[in-house]
Amino acid sequence: MRNIKLTIEYDGREYHGWQKQPNRLNIQGEIEQAIQTVIGEKVELIGSGRTDAGVHAFGQVANFKIESDFPIEKIPIAINSQLKKSIRIQKAEEVEENFHSRYHCHKKTYAYIIDNSQYGSAIYRNLTYHVSQPLDVEAMKQGAKYLVGEHDFSSFKSSGTSSKSSVRTIYNIDIMKEQERVVIQITGNGFLYNMVRIISGTLLEVGMGEIPPKEIELILKAKVRQRAGKTLPAHGLYLMNVDFE
Amino acid sequence: MRNIKLTIEYDGREYHGWQKQPNRLNIQGEIEQAIQTVIGEKVELIGSGRTDAGVHAFGQVANFKIESDFPIEKIPIAINSQLKKSIRIQKAEEVEENFHSRYHCHKKTYAYIIDNSQYGSAIYRNLTYHVSQPLDVEAMKQGAKYLVGEHDFSSFKSSGTSSKSSVRTIYNIDIMKEQERVVIQITGNGFLYNMVRIISGTLLEVGMGEIPPKEIELILKAKVRQRAGKTLPAHGLYLMNVDFE
Repeated sequence: MRNIKLTIEYDGREYHGWQKQPNRLNIQGEIEQAIQTVIGEKVELIGSGRTDAGVHAFGQVANFKIESDFPIEKIPIAINSQLKKSIRIQKAEEVEENFHSRYHCHKKTYAYIIDNSQYGSAIYRNLTYHVSQPLDVEAMKQGAKYLVGEHDFSSFKSSGTSSKSSVRTIYNIDIMKEQERVVIQITGNGFLYNMVRIISGTLLEVGMGEIPPKEIELILKAKVRQRAGKTLPAHGLYLMNVDFE
Repeated sequence: MRNIKLTIEYDGREYHGWQKQPNRLNIQGEIEQAIQTVIGEKVELIGSGRTDAGVHAFGQVANFKIESDFPIEKIPIAINSQLKKSIRIQKAEEVEENFHSRYHCHKKTYAYIIDNSQYGSAIYRNLTYHVSQPLDVEAMKQGAKYLVGEHDFSSFKSSGTSSKSSVRTIYNIDIMKEQERVVIQITGNGFLYNMVRIISGTLLEVGMGEIPPKEIELILKAKVRQRAGKTLPAHGLYLMNVDFE
Protein backbone atom coordinates (compact mmCIF):
# COMPACT_ATOMS: atom_id res chain seq x y z
CA MET A 1 0.00 0.00 0.00
CA ARG A 2 1.17 3.53 -0.79
CA ASN A 3 0.85 6.06 2.01
CA ILE A 4 0.07 9.62 0.88
CA LYS A 5 0.53 12.67 3.10
CA LEU A 6 -1.48 15.79 2.26
CA THR A 7 -1.00 19.38 3.40
CA ILE A 8 -4.37 21.10 3.33
CA GLU A 9 -5.63 24.66 3.54
CA TYR A 10 -9.27 25.37 4.32
CA ASP A 11 -11.66 28.18 5.08
CA GLY A 12 -13.52 26.80 8.06
CA ARG A 13 -16.57 29.04 7.72
CA GLU A 14 -18.56 26.69 5.53
CA TYR A 15 -17.83 23.49 7.45
CA HIS A 16 -18.90 21.81 10.66
CA GLY A 17 -15.26 21.12 11.42
CA TRP A 18 -12.74 18.57 10.23
CA GLN A 19 -14.37 15.40 11.49
CA LYS A 20 -16.62 13.23 9.39
CA GLN A 21 -20.24 13.23 10.52
CA PRO A 22 -23.47 12.44 8.74
CA ASN A 23 -25.58 15.20 7.17
CA ARG A 24 -23.20 18.01 8.07
CA LEU A 25 -20.64 19.39 5.69
CA ASN A 26 -17.18 18.49 7.01
CA ILE A 27 -13.68 18.66 5.62
CA GLN A 28 -12.57 15.06 6.16
CA GLY A 29 -15.66 13.70 4.42
CA GLU A 30 -15.37 16.08 1.47
CA ILE A 31 -11.75 15.11 0.83
CA GLU A 32 -12.38 11.37 1.27
CA GLN A 33 -15.16 11.63 -1.29
CA ALA A 34 -12.92 13.57 -3.70
CA ILE A 35 -10.16 10.93 -3.36
CA GLN A 36 -12.64 8.14 -4.03
CA THR A 37 -13.89 9.95 -7.14
CA VAL A 38 -10.49 10.58 -8.72
CA ILE A 39 -8.51 7.54 -7.51
CA GLY A 40 -11.38 5.06 -7.35
CA GLU A 41 -10.56 3.72 -3.91
CA LYS A 42 -12.48 4.20 -0.68
CA VAL A 43 -9.99 5.58 1.83
CA GLU A 44 -9.83 6.67 5.43
CA LEU A 45 -8.24 10.09 5.70
CA ILE A 46 -6.38 10.38 8.99
CA GLY A 47 -6.00 13.99 10.11
CA SER A 48 -3.35 15.23 12.56
CA GLY A 49 -6.31 16.19 14.72
CA ARG A 50 -9.78 17.65 14.47
CA THR A 51 -10.46 21.30 14.03
CA ASP A 52 -13.80 22.58 15.25
CA ALA A 53 -16.60 24.11 13.21
CA GLY A 54 -15.50 27.42 11.72
CA VAL A 55 -11.77 27.01 12.44
CA HIS A 56 -9.44 27.60 9.48
CA ALA A 57 -6.24 25.81 8.50
CA PHE A 58 -3.28 26.88 6.43
CA GLY A 59 -1.42 23.66 7.06
CA GLN A 60 -3.56 20.77 8.27
CA VAL A 61 -1.85 17.42 7.59
CA ALA A 62 -3.62 14.15 6.81
CA ASN A 63 -2.69 10.81 5.25
CA PHE A 64 -4.43 7.98 3.43
CA LYS A 65 -3.47 4.66 1.87
CA ILE A 66 -4.10 3.52 -1.68
CA GLU A 67 -3.18 0.66 -4.00
CA SER A 68 -3.35 2.84 -7.11
CA ASP A 69 -0.20 4.02 -8.88
CA PHE A 70 -1.81 7.42 -9.50
CA PRO A 71 1.16 9.83 -10.03
CA ILE A 72 1.97 11.66 -6.82
CA GLU A 73 2.55 15.00 -8.57
CA LYS A 74 -0.96 14.93 -10.02
CA ILE A 75 -2.73 14.16 -6.76
CA PRO A 76 -3.28 17.77 -5.54
CA ILE A 77 -4.76 19.01 -8.80
CA ALA A 78 -6.90 15.88 -9.18
CA ILE A 79 -8.37 16.05 -5.67
CA ASN A 80 -8.78 19.84 -5.89
CA SER A 81 -10.79 19.43 -9.07
CA GLN A 82 -13.48 17.65 -7.01
CA LEU A 83 -13.51 20.08 -4.08
CA LYS A 84 -15.07 23.45 -3.49
CA LYS A 85 -12.44 26.20 -3.49
CA SER A 86 -12.81 26.60 0.27
CA ILE A 87 -10.61 23.48 0.59
CA ARG A 88 -7.28 23.27 -1.28
CA ILE A 89 -4.77 20.45 -1.18
CA GLN A 90 -1.49 22.37 -1.20
CA LYS A 91 0.92 19.44 -1.25
CA ALA A 92 0.99 15.67 -1.62
CA GLU A 93 3.98 13.51 -0.69
CA GLU A 94 4.52 9.79 -0.63
CA VAL A 95 5.65 8.76 2.85
CA GLU A 96 6.70 5.52 4.48
CA GLU A 97 3.96 3.04 5.18
CA ASN A 98 3.93 3.42 8.96
CA PHE A 99 3.55 7.22 8.89
CA HIS A 100 0.43 8.24 10.84
CA SER A 101 -0.73 11.90 10.89
CA ARG A 102 -2.11 11.69 14.39
CA TYR A 103 0.25 9.31 16.21
CA HIS A 104 3.40 10.81 14.74
CA CYS A 105 2.36 14.42 15.15
CA HIS A 106 5.12 16.00 17.20
CA LYS A 107 3.90 19.57 17.49
CA LYS A 108 1.25 21.88 16.13
CA THR A 109 1.13 25.62 15.73
CA TYR A 110 -2.09 27.58 15.94
CA ALA A 111 -2.56 31.32 15.43
CA TYR A 112 -5.39 33.42 16.77
CA ILE A 113 -5.82 36.69 14.87
CA ILE A 114 -7.29 39.70 16.68
CA ASP A 115 -8.21 42.77 14.63
CA ASN A 116 -7.32 45.51 17.10
CA SER A 117 -8.37 48.45 14.92
CA GLN A 118 -10.83 50.95 16.34
CA TYR A 119 -13.82 50.12 14.15
CA GLY A 120 -12.87 46.72 12.74
CA SER A 121 -11.92 45.77 9.21
CA ALA A 122 -14.76 45.37 6.70
CA ILE A 123 -12.66 43.22 4.41
CA TYR A 124 -11.26 40.82 7.02
CA ARG A 125 -14.32 40.82 9.31
CA ASN A 126 -14.92 37.07 8.91
CA LEU A 127 -11.27 36.07 9.13
CA THR A 128 -10.30 37.89 12.33
CA TYR A 129 -11.85 38.64 15.72
CA HIS A 130 -12.39 42.34 16.33
CA VAL A 131 -11.53 43.99 19.65
CA SER A 132 -11.55 47.79 19.56
CA GLN A 133 -9.90 48.46 22.92
CA PRO A 134 -6.14 48.89 22.35
CA LEU A 135 -4.33 45.89 23.77
CA ASP A 136 -1.26 45.94 25.98
CA VAL A 137 0.86 43.48 24.02
CA GLU A 138 3.72 43.58 26.55
CA ALA A 139 1.38 42.48 29.33
CA MET A 140 0.07 39.69 27.10
CA LYS A 141 3.63 38.50 26.47
CA GLN A 142 4.34 38.48 30.20
CA GLY A 143 1.18 36.54 30.93
CA ALA A 144 1.90 34.04 28.17
CA LYS A 145 5.25 33.05 29.74
CA TYR A 146 3.49 31.22 32.60
CA LEU A 147 1.83 28.89 30.10
CA VAL A 148 5.00 27.73 28.37
CA GLY A 149 6.18 24.30 29.49
CA GLU A 150 4.49 21.08 30.58
CA HIS A 151 1.37 21.80 32.62
CA ASP A 152 -2.05 20.48 33.48
CA PHE A 153 -4.22 22.78 31.34
CA SER A 154 -7.56 21.86 32.96
CA SER A 155 -8.33 25.58 33.40
CA PHE A 156 -8.03 26.01 29.64
CA LYS A 157 -10.24 23.25 28.34
CA SER A 158 -13.94 23.10 27.62
CA SER A 159 -15.92 20.25 29.09
CA GLY A 160 -17.27 17.56 26.83
CA THR A 161 -13.99 15.95 25.89
CA SER A 162 -12.78 12.50 26.69
CA SER A 163 -9.02 13.17 26.90
CA LYS A 164 -7.62 11.05 29.71
CA SER A 165 -4.99 13.56 30.71
CA SER A 166 -5.08 17.35 30.71
CA VAL A 167 -1.30 17.59 30.70
CA ARG A 168 0.15 19.14 27.58
CA THR A 169 3.39 20.91 26.69
CA ILE A 170 3.43 24.39 25.15
CA TYR A 171 6.79 25.00 23.50
CA ASN A 172 6.28 28.59 22.58
CA ILE A 173 3.79 31.47 22.57
CA ASP A 174 4.46 34.48 20.36
CA ILE A 175 2.33 37.60 20.64
CA MET A 176 2.93 39.68 17.55
CA LYS A 177 1.65 43.16 16.80
CA GLU A 178 1.34 43.44 13.00
CA GLN A 179 -0.02 46.86 12.07
CA GLU A 180 -3.49 46.85 13.61
CA ARG A 181 -3.53 43.13 14.32
CA VAL A 182 -2.46 41.23 17.38
CA VAL A 183 -1.60 37.62 16.59
CA ILE A 184 -1.28 35.00 19.31
CA GLN A 185 0.74 32.09 17.97
CA ILE A 186 1.02 28.94 20.09
CA THR A 187 3.11 25.85 19.47
CA GLY A 188 2.51 22.75 21.56
CA ASN A 189 2.61 18.97 21.51
CA GLY A 190 -1.17 18.83 21.54
CA PHE A 191 -4.17 20.86 22.61
CA LEU A 192 -7.25 20.13 24.69
CA TYR A 193 -10.75 20.97 23.51
CA ASN A 194 -10.94 24.75 22.85
CA MET A 195 -7.56 25.22 24.56
CA VAL A 196 -6.15 27.73 22.06
CA ARG A 197 -9.36 29.75 22.04
CA ILE A 198 -9.51 29.84 25.86
CA ILE A 199 -5.82 30.75 26.20
CA SER A 200 -6.37 33.49 23.60
CA GLY A 201 -9.46 34.74 25.44
CA THR A 202 -7.54 34.83 28.72
CA LEU A 203 -4.53 36.61 27.23
CA LEU A 204 -6.97 39.04 25.61
CA GLU A 205 -8.27 39.94 29.09
CA VAL A 206 -4.65 40.48 30.16
CA GLY A 207 -4.20 42.79 27.17
CA MET A 208 -7.33 44.70 28.19
CA GLY A 209 -6.00 45.16 31.73
CA GLU A 210 -8.72 43.01 33.27
CA ILE A 211 -6.34 40.30 34.47
CA PRO A 212 -2.79 41.06 35.73
CA PRO A 213 -0.18 39.01 33.81
CA LYS A 214 0.98 37.09 36.85
CA GLU A 215 -2.55 35.90 37.59
CA ILE A 216 -2.14 33.52 34.64
CA GLU A 217 0.03 31.37 36.91
CA LEU A 218 -2.77 31.16 39.49
CA ILE A 219 -5.39 30.40 36.85
CA LEU A 220 -3.20 27.59 35.54
CA LYS A 221 -2.68 26.16 39.04
CA ALA A 222 -6.38 26.36 39.91
CA LYS A 223 -7.26 23.74 37.25
CA VAL A 224 -10.77 25.14 37.05
CA ARG A 225 -12.23 26.27 33.74
CA GLN A 226 -14.19 29.12 35.37
CA ARG A 227 -10.99 30.88 36.40
CA ALA A 228 -9.82 31.45 32.82
CA GLY A 229 -11.19 33.91 30.23
CA LYS A 230 -13.84 33.32 27.65
CA THR A 231 -13.58 31.03 24.64
CA LEU A 232 -12.97 33.26 21.62
CA PRO A 233 -14.97 32.54 18.45
CA ALA A 234 -13.75 30.03 15.87
CA HIS A 235 -13.38 32.43 12.94
CA GLY A 236 -10.16 34.00 14.31
CA LEU A 237 -8.39 30.64 14.72
CA TYR A 238 -5.97 29.06 12.24
CA LEU A 239 -4.11 25.75 12.34
CA MET A 240 -0.84 27.01 10.88
CA ASN A 241 1.27 23.87 10.65
CA VAL A 242 1.93 20.43 11.97
CA ASP A 243 5.41 19.03 12.62
CA PHE A 244 6.40 15.39 12.71
CA GLU A 245 9.29 13.62 14.39
CA MET B 1 -22.94 74.03 6.94
CA ARG B 2 -20.39 71.60 8.36
CA ASN B 3 -18.45 69.55 5.82
CA ILE B 4 -17.54 66.03 6.96
CA LYS B 5 -14.89 63.90 5.27
CA LEU B 6 -15.10 60.14 5.72
CA THR B 7 -12.48 57.45 5.09
CA ILE B 8 -14.27 54.23 4.28
CA GLU B 9 -13.32 50.56 4.01
CA TYR B 10 -15.60 48.10 2.24
CA ASP B 11 -15.78 44.55 1.03
CA GLY B 12 -17.10 45.00 -2.48
CA ARG B 13 -18.41 41.48 -2.90
CA GLU B 14 -21.90 42.21 -1.63
CA TYR B 15 -22.43 45.47 -3.52
CA HIS B 16 -23.18 46.63 -7.03
CA GLY B 17 -20.44 49.20 -6.69
CA TRP B 18 -20.14 52.58 -5.02
CA GLN B 19 -22.73 54.51 -7.00
CA LYS B 20 -26.30 54.98 -5.88
CA GLN B 21 -28.83 53.17 -8.07
CA PRO B 22 -32.34 51.96 -7.43
CA ASN B 23 -33.04 48.37 -6.34
CA ARG B 24 -29.39 47.33 -6.23
CA LEU B 25 -27.35 47.31 -3.06
CA ASN B 26 -24.68 50.01 -3.34
CA ILE B 27 -22.23 51.58 -0.94
CA GLN B 28 -23.09 55.26 -1.42
CA GLY B 29 -26.79 54.62 -0.84
CA GLU B 30 -26.19 52.50 2.26
CA ILE B 31 -24.03 55.17 3.88
CA GLU B 32 -26.37 58.05 2.95
CA GLN B 33 -29.22 56.11 4.55
CA ALA B 34 -27.16 55.45 7.69
CA ILE B 35 -26.25 59.15 7.97
CA GLN B 36 -29.88 60.15 7.62
CA THR B 37 -30.87 57.68 10.34
CA VAL B 38 -28.33 58.80 12.93
CA ILE B 39 -27.99 62.52 12.12
CA GLY B 40 -31.51 63.11 10.88
CA GLU B 41 -30.54 65.00 7.75
CA LYS B 42 -30.84 63.87 4.16
CA VAL B 43 -27.37 64.25 2.64
CA GLU B 44 -25.57 63.73 -0.63
CA LEU B 45 -22.43 61.70 -0.10
CA ILE B 46 -19.78 62.74 -2.63
CA GLY B 47 -17.24 59.99 -3.25
CA SER B 48 -13.75 60.54 -4.66
CA GLY B 49 -14.93 58.38 -7.53
CA ARG B 50 -16.98 55.29 -8.24
CA THR B 51 -15.73 51.81 -7.68
CA ASP B 52 -17.34 49.07 -9.76
CA ALA B 53 -19.36 46.12 -8.55
CA GLY B 54 -17.21 43.78 -6.51
CA VAL B 55 -14.24 46.15 -6.09
CA HIS B 56 -12.98 46.62 -2.52
CA ALA B 57 -11.69 49.71 -0.76
CA PHE B 58 -9.41 50.18 2.19
CA GLY B 59 -9.44 53.95 1.87
CA GLN B 60 -12.30 55.37 -0.18
CA VAL B 61 -12.92 59.04 0.70
CA ALA B 62 -16.28 60.79 0.62
CA ASN B 63 -17.76 63.96 2.09
CA PHE B 64 -21.20 65.27 3.04
CA LYS B 65 -22.66 68.44 4.51
CA ILE B 66 -24.84 68.75 7.60
CA GLU B 67 -26.33 71.45 9.82
CA SER B 68 -26.26 69.23 12.91
CA ASP B 69 -23.67 69.73 15.67
CA PHE B 70 -23.35 65.95 16.05
CA PRO B 71 -19.89 65.44 17.68
CA ILE B 72 -17.31 64.60 15.01
CA GLU B 73 -15.62 61.94 17.15
CA LYS B 74 -18.87 60.00 17.45
CA ILE B 75 -19.69 60.01 13.74
CA PRO B 76 -17.85 56.80 12.74
CA ILE B 77 -19.37 54.68 15.48
CA ALA B 78 -22.83 56.16 14.91
CA ILE B 79 -22.84 55.56 11.16
CA ASN B 80 -21.22 52.12 11.56
CA SER B 81 -24.02 51.13 13.94
CA GLN B 82 -26.46 51.39 11.00
CA LEU B 83 -24.31 49.60 8.43
CA LYS B 84 -23.59 45.98 7.70
CA LYS B 85 -20.05 45.03 8.74
CA SER B 86 -18.99 44.85 5.10
CA ILE B 87 -18.78 48.67 5.19
CA ARG B 88 -16.83 50.43 7.96
CA ILE B 89 -16.30 54.14 8.38
CA GLN B 90 -12.68 54.23 9.57
CA LYS B 91 -12.33 57.97 10.09
CA ALA B 92 -14.39 61.18 10.15
CA GLU B 93 -12.87 64.66 9.98
CA GLU B 94 -14.38 68.11 9.80
CA VAL B 95 -12.96 69.87 6.73
CA GLU B 96 -13.35 73.32 5.22
CA GLU B 97 -16.64 74.04 3.52
CA ASN B 98 -15.30 74.03 -0.05
CA PHE B 99 -13.61 70.62 0.23
CA HIS B 100 -14.95 68.29 -2.48
CA SER B 101 -13.93 64.60 -2.56
CA ARG B 102 -14.08 64.35 -6.34
CA TYR B 103 -12.90 67.79 -7.53
CA HIS B 104 -10.05 68.04 -5.04
CA CYS B 105 -8.86 64.48 -5.45
CA HIS B 106 -5.19 64.77 -6.41
CA LYS B 107 -4.20 61.15 -6.74
CA LYS B 108 -5.50 57.68 -6.06
CA THR B 109 -3.74 54.42 -5.40
CA TYR B 110 -5.21 51.07 -6.40
CA ALA B 111 -3.76 47.62 -5.72
CA TYR B 112 -4.49 44.47 -7.68
CA ILE B 113 -3.69 41.32 -5.71
CA ILE B 114 -2.72 38.16 -7.60
CA ASP B 115 -2.46 34.90 -5.69
CA ASN B 116 0.45 33.27 -7.51
CA SER B 117 0.50 30.02 -5.50
CA GLN B 118 0.30 26.74 -7.36
CA TYR B 119 -3.18 25.67 -6.26
CA GLY B 120 -4.64 28.94 -4.95
CA SER B 121 -5.46 29.92 -1.40
CA ALA B 122 -8.69 28.52 0.07
CA ILE B 123 -8.86 31.25 2.71
CA TYR B 124 -8.22 34.25 0.44
CA ARG B 125 -9.94 32.86 -2.66
CA ASN B 126 -12.51 35.66 -2.79
CA LEU B 127 -10.08 38.45 -1.99
CA THR B 128 -7.38 37.71 -4.57
CA TYR B 129 -7.20 36.56 -8.19
CA HIS B 130 -5.50 33.21 -8.60
CA VAL B 131 -2.92 32.56 -11.34
CA SER B 132 -0.96 29.33 -10.92
CA GLN B 133 1.72 29.92 -13.54
CA PRO B 134 4.77 31.49 -11.82
CA LEU B 135 5.05 35.13 -12.88
CA ASP B 136 8.19 36.88 -14.02
CA VAL B 137 7.99 39.91 -11.74
CA GLU B 138 11.07 41.57 -13.26
CA ALA B 139 9.49 41.51 -16.72
CA MET B 140 6.29 42.98 -15.26
CA LYS B 141 8.32 45.80 -13.68
CA GLN B 142 9.99 46.54 -16.99
CA GLY B 143 6.68 46.59 -18.83
CA ALA B 144 5.10 48.84 -16.21
CA LYS B 145 7.71 51.57 -16.77
CA TYR B 146 6.21 52.44 -20.16
CA LEU B 147 2.92 53.31 -18.52
CA VAL B 148 4.30 55.81 -16.01
CA GLY B 149 3.77 59.44 -17.02
CA GLU B 150 1.06 61.36 -18.85
CA HIS B 151 -0.41 59.29 -21.66
CA ASP B 152 -3.56 58.67 -23.63
CA PHE B 153 -4.73 55.41 -22.07
CA SER B 154 -7.37 54.57 -24.71
CA SER B 155 -5.88 51.07 -25.03
CA PHE B 156 -6.57 50.52 -21.35
CA LYS B 157 -10.18 51.56 -21.02
CA SER B 158 -13.41 49.68 -21.48
CA SER B 159 -16.04 51.18 -23.72
CA GLY B 160 -19.21 52.55 -22.23
CA THR B 161 -17.75 55.54 -20.46
CA SER B 162 -18.35 59.18 -21.15
CA SER B 163 -14.96 60.61 -20.15
CA LYS B 164 -14.09 63.38 -22.60
CA SER B 165 -10.38 62.75 -22.50
CA SER B 166 -8.46 59.49 -22.21
CA VAL B 167 -5.34 61.28 -21.04
CA ARG B 168 -4.31 60.45 -17.49
CA THR B 169 -1.10 60.56 -15.50
CA ILE B 170 0.30 57.52 -13.74
CA TYR B 171 2.78 58.62 -11.09
CA ASN B 172 3.99 55.22 -10.05
CA ILE B 173 3.53 51.48 -10.55
CA ASP B 174 4.98 49.09 -7.99
CA ILE B 175 5.01 45.36 -8.62
CA MET B 176 5.63 43.63 -5.33
CA LYS B 177 6.23 39.96 -4.69
CA GLU B 178 4.97 39.21 -1.17
CA GLN B 179 5.41 35.52 -0.38
CA GLU B 180 3.12 33.84 -2.91
CA ARG B 181 1.35 37.02 -3.92
CA VAL B 182 2.13 39.47 -6.66
CA VAL B 183 0.68 42.91 -5.97
CA ILE B 184 0.38 45.55 -8.69
CA GLN B 185 0.03 48.95 -7.06
CA ILE B 186 -0.75 51.93 -9.27
CA THR B 187 -0.91 55.60 -8.31
CA GLY B 188 -2.39 58.09 -10.75
CA ASN B 189 -4.32 61.33 -10.99
CA GLY B 190 -7.38 59.45 -12.17
CA PHE B 191 -8.36 56.27 -13.94
CA LEU B 192 -10.55 55.45 -16.93
CA TYR B 193 -13.25 52.79 -16.80
CA ASN B 194 -11.61 49.43 -15.90
CA MET B 195 -8.17 50.98 -16.46
CA VAL B 196 -6.48 49.38 -13.44
CA ARG B 197 -7.98 45.97 -14.22
CA ILE B 198 -6.88 46.16 -17.88
CA ILE B 199 -3.37 47.36 -16.99
CA SER B 200 -3.15 44.52 -14.45
CA GLY B 201 -4.38 42.01 -17.02
CA THR B 202 -1.82 43.24 -19.54
CA LEU B 203 1.07 43.18 -17.04
CA LEU B 204 -0.08 39.69 -16.04
CA GLU B 205 0.42 38.56 -19.65
CA VAL B 206 3.88 40.12 -19.52
CA GLY B 207 4.55 38.12 -16.33
CA MET B 208 3.39 34.95 -18.10
CA GLY B 209 5.76 35.58 -21.00
CA GLU B 210 2.94 36.10 -23.49
CA ILE B 211 3.79 39.76 -24.15
CA PRO B 212 7.37 41.10 -24.18
CA PRO B 213 7.78 44.03 -21.74
CA LYS B 214 8.63 46.53 -24.45
CA GLU B 215 5.42 45.75 -26.33
CA ILE B 216 3.60 47.71 -23.62
CA GLU B 217 4.86 50.89 -25.30
CA LEU B 218 3.33 49.81 -28.63
CA ILE B 219 0.04 48.84 -26.98
CA LEU B 220 -0.10 52.26 -25.32
CA LYS B 221 0.62 54.06 -28.60
CA ALA B 222 -1.95 52.02 -30.54
CA LYS B 223 -4.83 53.53 -28.51
CA VAL B 224 -6.94 50.48 -29.28
CA ARG B 225 -8.51 48.45 -26.47
CA GLN B 226 -8.08 45.16 -28.37
CA ARG B 227 -4.29 45.45 -28.21
CA ALA B 228 -4.16 45.26 -24.41
CA GLY B 229 -4.73 42.24 -22.18
CA LYS B 230 -7.94 41.08 -20.57
CA THR B 231 -9.85 42.90 -17.84
CA LEU B 232 -9.09 41.06 -14.59
CA PRO B 233 -12.04 40.33 -12.27
CA ALA B 234 -13.18 42.85 -9.66
CA HIS B 235 -12.52 40.75 -6.56
CA GLY B 236 -8.72 41.26 -6.75
CA LEU B 237 -8.95 45.07 -6.89
CA TYR B 238 -8.63 47.45 -3.95
CA LEU B 239 -8.87 51.25 -3.76
CA MET B 240 -6.05 51.75 -1.27
CA ASN B 241 -6.10 55.50 -0.68
CA VAL B 242 -7.00 58.88 -2.04
CA ASP B 243 -4.77 61.93 -1.72
CA PHE B 244 -5.88 65.56 -1.80
CA GLU B 245 -4.01 68.70 -2.65
